[in-house]
Amino acid sequence: MKYSFRYDYSEGAHPRILERLRETNNIQQSGYGEDQYCDNARNIIRQLIGNPDAHVHFVSGGTQANLTMISAILKPYESVIAAETGHIFVHETGAIEATGHKINTIPTRDGKITINGIQKVLDEHTDEHMVLPKLVFISNSTEIGTVYNKAELTLLSNFCREKDLLLYLDGARLGSAIMSADNDMTLKELSSLLDSFYIGGTKNGALLGEAIVINNPKIQEKFRFHMKMRGALLAKGRIFGLMFEELLKDGLYFNIARQANQLADKIRIALAESGYSFFTQTTSNQIFPILPNSVIEKLSKDYEFYIWRKIDDQNSAIRLVTSWAMEEDAINQFINDLKKAR
Amino acid sequence: MKYSFRYDYSEGAHPRILERLRETNNIQQSGYGEDQYCDNARNIIRQLIGNPDAHVHFVSGGTQANLTMISAILKPYESVIAAETGHIFVHETGAIEATGHKINTIPTRDGKITINGIQKVLDEHTDEHMVLPKLVFISNSTEIGTVYNKAELTLLSNFCREKDLLLYLDGARLGSAIMSADNDMTLKELSSLLDSFYIGGTKNGALLGEAIVINNPKIQEKFRFHMKMRGALLAKGRIFGLMFEELLKDGLYFNIARQANQLADKIRIALAESGYSFFTQTTSNQIFPILPNSVIEKLSKDYEFYIWRKIDDQNSAIRLVTSWAMEEDAINQFINDLKKAR
Amino acid sequence: MKYSFRYDYSEGAHPRILERLRETNNIQQSGYGEDQYCDNARNIIRQLIGNPDAHVHFVSGGTQANLTMISAILKPYESVIAAETGHIFVHETGAIEATGHKINTIPTRDGKITINGIQKVLDEHTDEHMVLPKLVFISNSTEIGTVYNKAELTLLSNFCREKDLLLYLDGARLGSAIMSADNDMTLKELSSLLDSFYIGGTKNGALLGEAIVINNPKIQEKFRFHMKMRGALLAKGRIFGLMFEELLKDGLYFNIARQANQLADKIRIALAESGYSFFTQTTSNQIFPILPNSVIEKLSKDYEFYIWRKIDDQNSAIRLVTSWAMEEDAINQFINDLKKAR
Amino acid sequence: MKYSFRYDYSEGAHPRILERLRETNNIQQSGYGEDQYCDNARNIIRQLIGNPDAHVHFVSGGTQANLTMISAILKPYESVIAAETGHIFVHETGAIEATGHKINTIPTRDGKITINGIQKVLDEHTDEHMVLPKLVFISNSTEIGTVYNKAELTLLSNFCREKDLLLYLDGARLGSAIMSADNDMTLKELSSLLDSFYIGGTKNGALLGEAIVINNPKIQEKFRFHMKMRGALLAKGRIFGLMFEELLKDGLYFNIARQANQLADKIRIALAESGYSFFTQTTSNQIFPILPNSVIEKLSKDYEFYIWRKIDDQNSAIRLVTSWAMEEDAINQFINDLKKAR
Repeated sequence: MKYSFRYDYSEGAHPRILERLRETNNIQQSGYGEDQYCDNARNIIRQLIGNPDAHVHFVSGGTQANLTMISAILKPYESVIAAETGHIFVHETGAIEATGHKINTIPTRDGKITINGIQKVLDEHTDEHMVLPKLVFISNSTEIGTVYNKAELTLLSNFCREKDLLLYLDGARLGSAIMSADNDMTLKELSSLLDSFYIGGTKNGALLGEAIVINNPKIQEKFRFHMKMRGALLAKGRIFGLMFEELLKDGLYFNIARQANQLADKIRIALAESGYSFFTQTTSNQIFPILPNSVIEKLSKDYEFYIWRKIDDQNSAIRLVTSWAMEEDAINQFINDLKKAR
Repeated sequence: MKYSFRYDYSEGAHPRILERLRETNNIQQSGYGEDQYCDNARNIIRQLIGNPDAHVHFVSGGTQANLTMISAILKPYESVIAAETGHIFVHETGAIEATGHKINTIPTRDGKITINGIQKVLDEHTDEHMVLPKLVFISNSTEIGTVYNKAELTLLSNFCREKDLLLYLDGARLGSAIMSADNDMTLKELSSLLDSFYIGGTKNGALLGEAIVINNPKIQEKFRFHMKMRGALLAKGRIFGLMFEELLKDGLYFNIARQANQLADKIRIALAESGYSFFTQTTSNQIFPILPNSVIEKLSKDYEFYIWRKIDDQNSAIRLVTSWAMEEDAINQFINDLKKAR
Repeated sequence: MKYSFRYDYSEGAHPRILERLRETNNIQQSGYGEDQYCDNARNIIRQLIGNPDAHVHFVSGGTQANLTMISAILKPYESVIAAETGHIFVHETGAIEATGHKINTIPTRDGKITINGIQKVLDEHTDEHMVLPKLVFISNSTEIGTVYNKAELTLLSNFCREKDLLLYLDGARLGSAIMSADNDMTLKELSSLLDSFYIGGTKNGALLGEAIVINNPKIQEKFRFHMKMRGALLAKGRIFGLMFEELLKDGLYFNIARQANQLADKIRIALAESGYSFFTQTTSNQIFPILPNSVIEKLSKDYEFYIWRKIDDQNSAIRLVTSWAMEEDAINQFINDLKKAR
Repeated sequence: MKYSFRYDYSEGAHPRILERLRETNNIQQSGYGEDQYCDNARNIIRQLIGNPDAHVHFVSGGTQANLTMISAILKPYESVIAAETGHIFVHETGAIEATGHKINTIPTRDGKITINGIQKVLDEHTDEHMVLPKLVFISNSTEIGTVYNKAELTLLSNFCREKDLLLYLDGARLGSAIMSADNDMTLKELSSLLDSFYIGGTKNGALLGEAIVINNPKIQEKFRFHMKMRGALLAKGRIFGLMFEELLKDGLYFNIARQANQLADKIRIALAESGYSFFTQTTSNQIFPILPNSVIEKLSKDYEFYIWRKIDDQNSAIRLVTSWAMEEDAINQFINDLKKAR
């Protein structure tokens, strides 16, 4: 059995969540997210982000969060702007288009969107023969492991407000982003710059589940109708509430995200010490080292990971992802094997 | 705190499932339903239904199962036929229409579809100015608690094949249907009459999850693309596999469904003994007694349930739903209170 | 060659339109409805309806008008209420559902909607597990030839405003409705009661084309985006403008609608004199007599028309439609043949 | 009043079409394209393309043709590949996405697609987390005036068949393409390389209308249902039949396309003689000269045209389009004014 760095969802949930499931199992609760645990989780989130008027909803996965939120925001002829590396553009099987909306893309080196990129899209869309760009989609951390800092996000946010665009953040790996060395924002500061975002549970301690936060009152209305219509309103929504309550009530979410980042740091340092360069510079739980194909081949015998991209005839970038659930021993073993594989 | 007969998902999961979650928590598995537990569950299901070539997929809820399967089957101009009481027509916020498809309805007294009803729809749809009915949707047990017997389902199935229609069964409460006194089919016999159906987990022991079975090879192709596109392909799909494996490997699923039905039987008998009649005659875990409004008012102080429908100025039908997780004591208490409320 | 009463679009356009096409053919004009003729037609329509702020757009057919307007008005989870005889529900191949929206139907004897019918739909839709009814769709004349009078439409309009519903009228045969004996409204009065409607050209003098009028400012915004997206924005939109200008500038539209109605009246009187009854009582250009099957068979040798519905073993209702383009001689011949066919 | 080179639909229809409308105006015909003229036009087209089994349908415009055909071909999760300059990607307000489908784009210098470009898209789409590319969309002439030759189209066609992709051609300006100096195919040869295409009427002699040809039997089925559902089945479809019959029965379509090209040639030669270069090298009825901004400004006083793109601070590319309806005198005048404007 190979050890997997393929993604950060190879294991189950944080033990405290399993324990809590056990404790609450026989207690009757209302269905569809109208239970006590969801209420508790909503209140904790509103407090964490400093917005008592935020609407908070729980859905089972990231694609579901994105397609439900984006299709709820946009009018039929409106489009969403994303980086060409954006998850909604590349890895969601046309889920956004399936709700009827075009994605306008922006070229990017580091997975981040710039206001110049957005402006170029706006300049090209001038009349009713083209879609009307209305929403900017970003991920944090991005699909290639980078992280927005406060200056970047503030610039984006101000630009969007000025241009009557909305700003939505895919936080599948928001824990790792917040706890990364490149980050200089609190969750509260980040939230204040966004019309909507989601806090990813699946990749940071939960069995499943993402918490959608809607700050902008204009897009809060009747979101539960959208959820039900898209198949996202679960009967036992209580489990989402329970998991987010447990993860967020005392900082567990951030602590385990830090753990994942620290495990990534160990690998990053070992890679750098071995003289390898990186496809993107990251401080989150995703690492994209460029390795000789011979090294990749050797590592592949005992480890699973994505071959991200061919760099040249001798070298490729791979993707290594760490999770809070990984054991330090396994990381050390990998580092040893990495050094031997040279 | 009132005791709830509102639905069969007021509690958590069967304890064996929680235990299994704990046991397997640290074991790395592939994502997106390509793990070992899902494989095991698929094999168990294929064996139970006697179809080694069936495709089996797991999704998080019933609306998601319905919208993903139905939109995968139909061409853009094709429609689905359902009873006017059908869940997809009444209680899914237009989820099927949101994928672009019309639902043709059939009037029904008992929640079941007849071939006469289908033939009438076919007769009315004659050319390209109307949709082309292609799929028949049934629920078992139905939305009003009734159950198809083998003769009825065989007639439907043969009729559909003759008319080039496909037959799909919503099995949100399939466990209760199979274990009800009105049923005379094994799961295997039922499956052999259907092009596709789903085995409901949420309402019978799981935390969440439905197992979609596709028997007809013509509609098996590339279903995972549909799932991903609709937001139904979960990263930690392992939890679905684990739950269905546990529920189905030794009959737990059917045993707890029988339990729920037996609890319903107790209430049914007490109601009949008290001289009340029923809106629909059921042997599954849903009961629709007609009660004087004064009785309903008294019961409402301590119990939660749906007021199903006004019958006349003095009486209304209510819905009581039992679950495997309910305690016999609570049922006895309810029966006592029922008798006192006369 | 049989003479056809099948529909009111068996012939071409009013000769004045063909003449105008010839006169203007070489004059360069802007594309996509931004030409001079469209501007003229818009101004004439605004004046006729007494609303200088109305938005007016031209599309090629009724289904296109309905699907573009309805999908522009509704949010994803919102539905449209229609009579069960409504064109959008019965004869548009699921065009509205294809844009993602459910149609809630109301039973009707005469093709018209009542406020009781609407209220029943509203009562049944109470939360996010169901669609949210938002728009009421009516046709005038209806699909079975009847016509709303001022009292009926005023009641509907007031009720809709009170219930926060919008009211849209399909005017495919609006000319015939306005000029029918049952009508007691001017176009201006009718328009003032509606959020949106279309004036049908195809069935009353034009080669093709319907003029969509949007009175309610809340649904006027960016309608050209919707049109382009649905394939409804034609390069040579000039022909729509030209046709509606010609039809409406001096009352031609209403005069030829009256002609069609008068031809229908002649047939109606002859039918009544022959002792036949009617499936619906109409004063517009559609007639639904109930005839013995033997008579129908004889007439079928020389005439085309729809067999609308079997009434009993001996009798059926047929539909006869007259158009402005029909010759009085042909009508007289038909009446003779009708009398002989007894 | 400025003279317009803005597009090839500033005028009406060829006089022979208007004459034919007049002649046939009073003749009753069946609706919805089931009339005699449509039958005639279908037969003429089948003969011209040498495929007696082709299905031929008529719709009102190019966006409608594209959205109806493409959505009829693709399964929900399938995508269409187009050049980044493709009309469906840039100028149809997300009409394809509105039917639920993603467009994968290929960078291009000359508006044409290459097999390398397609292969790159295929290489990037490997599993169910991404859409499945299934259809290749090309335009001829392209959106920037270039034309596919037989070798290029044969290579594309063979590649598509080998890769199980379908090939569809947008022929909005097919007449001009076929008659251009760069073309070396007959319509019959071109058709034999395509699964489906449309012959553009709007931009070459008709008032409106495009003739969709479906060669591949696998995608012929029930297309009229798609048309009706998309609002593309017109009551008086007879006018489409009449126009295409008149244009194609004796080569009028090709003669007037040649006329338009010859007028463009005159302008092209004059531009070249004046020493101007071109943004793209074209032999069809679209010309993209690069002119000093001062020249553009002078010409703008008397002429309308698109400013296509800024080239540098002093120069821009403009687009000039000629049509069969333009007078030679107007072209000569423009050439004079062009020379004076230097």
